[in-house]
Amino acid sequence: MHDTRKVNVMEDIYGENEHIAVHTREALTERDAFCVNVMGAPGVGKTSCLKALFACLKERRPYVVEGDIESDLDARHLRELGIPAIQLNTFGACHLDAPLVRNGVQNIQFEGPSMLFIENIGNLVCPAEFDVGADLNVMLLSVPEGDDKPLKYPLMFTVSQAALISKMDVAPVFDFDLDRFKENIAPLNPEMTVIPLSAVTGEGFDAWLAYLKGKVSAR
Amino acid sequence: MHDTRKVNVMEDIYGENEHIAVHTREALTERDAFCVNVMGAPGVGKTSCLKALFACLKERRPYVVEGDIESDLDARHLRELGIPAIQLNTFGACHLDAPLVRNGVQNIQFEGPSMLFIENIGNLVCPAEFDVGADLNVMLLSVPEGDDKPLKYPLMFTVSQAALISKMDVAPVFDFDLDRFKENIAPLNPEMTVIPLSAVTGEGFDAWLAYLKGKVSAR
Repeated sequence: MHDTRKVNVMEDIYGENEHIAVHTREALTERDAFCVNVMGAPGVGKTSCLKALFACLKERRPYVVEGDIESDLDARHLRELGIPAIQLNTFGACHLDAPLVRNGVQNIQFEGPSMLFIENIGNLVCPAEFDVGADLNVMLLSVPEGDDKPLKYPLMFTVSQAALISKMDVAPVFDFDLDRFKENIAPLNPEMTVIPLSAVTGEGFDAWLAYLKGKVSAR
Repeated sequence: MHDTRKVNVMEDIYGENEHIAVHTREALTERDAFCVNVMGAPGVGKTSCLKALFACLKERRPYVVEGDIESDLDARHLRELGIPAIQLNTFGACHLDAPLVRNGVQNIQFEGPSMLFIENIGNLVCPAEFDVGADLNVMLLSVPEGDDKPLKYPLMFTVSQAALISKMDVAPVFDFDLDRFKENIAPLNPEMTVIPLSAVTGEGFDAWLAYLKGKVSAR
């Protein structure tokens, strides 16, 4: 009995989520905001990599929707840098979903061509299951996490179009092999773009920016 | 309508989970197996820290239940070291729950006084919500993840009795402040034991072993 009810409810949740995500995507396109869903485990450097990107992003004004279970640390840091940041707290839930993101996005006053970054909950598993209405799914994996992670968390590597490898500056102290990492991704997502980054040295941000510009042009 | 059904189902799931967890704990105690639920984000070194611990664990034979979404990489590594390891795959689910762990545990033939380690799914969020029937909840946080994580993932720091800080050998290249980390934990869980570890240098494993022995004696 439990199983049947669980399956029915999950179908309702995913169906409703997808419906809202489609509408969010349309509404953002009409407002000339290109939306990027940024995913990755706790502490991989999602906020740091966004901050470093914003320093070289000139064509479109950046906006951030910050997902956190609790706290508003990252949103406050971003606001101090002059980046409009909206905080979404899930109070226990392990991912953002389309209804929550829609509610956050509705409150943003975009001024001209915009780039909206959704910083998802720090989690390499659950956020991959929920379309939030972004134009692009990007995931971060940090060097200390290891190059075997595509084998263990395959869905995240399947639903994301790009994998950013953060903390490349510490690669010498960890046994992270970029070629092995790409080999682990290939069977899951042969089209995936891999961009090594370091928010400390600035490595890779030109490549990430060029990648984003290409995606905006192609929309 | 959706909300009412969701709440009912979640109450059913949590209630059933707790019931099974209590029985698993009793059954393991009868078989003289002390059970430790090991949680932490992807790549923090859960398997590496267990391997290093087993090298100095003499009084009780170690057994491992390996939780992974897919793959059996870690279970295979452990078996190569002569550690009996059972693989549980969740095929998408982001945590182990009591029914799954019970099914895995039933297949273990314990030989004498035993120490059973459940290596949970790499996730700092969802595993904290599900009692799997362990005697002790232990979490790992790695130095590269940052000392602010108790503020962002409070439930994990509330339900775990000990926090192991892994990858202490790379502390010089990261801005990780152990005192600040403890200050962030204090309001959530003032009784929490914090043990810095390095599977590379061997730092902290004596302290972790002594801590485990104390917990076994106190059961």
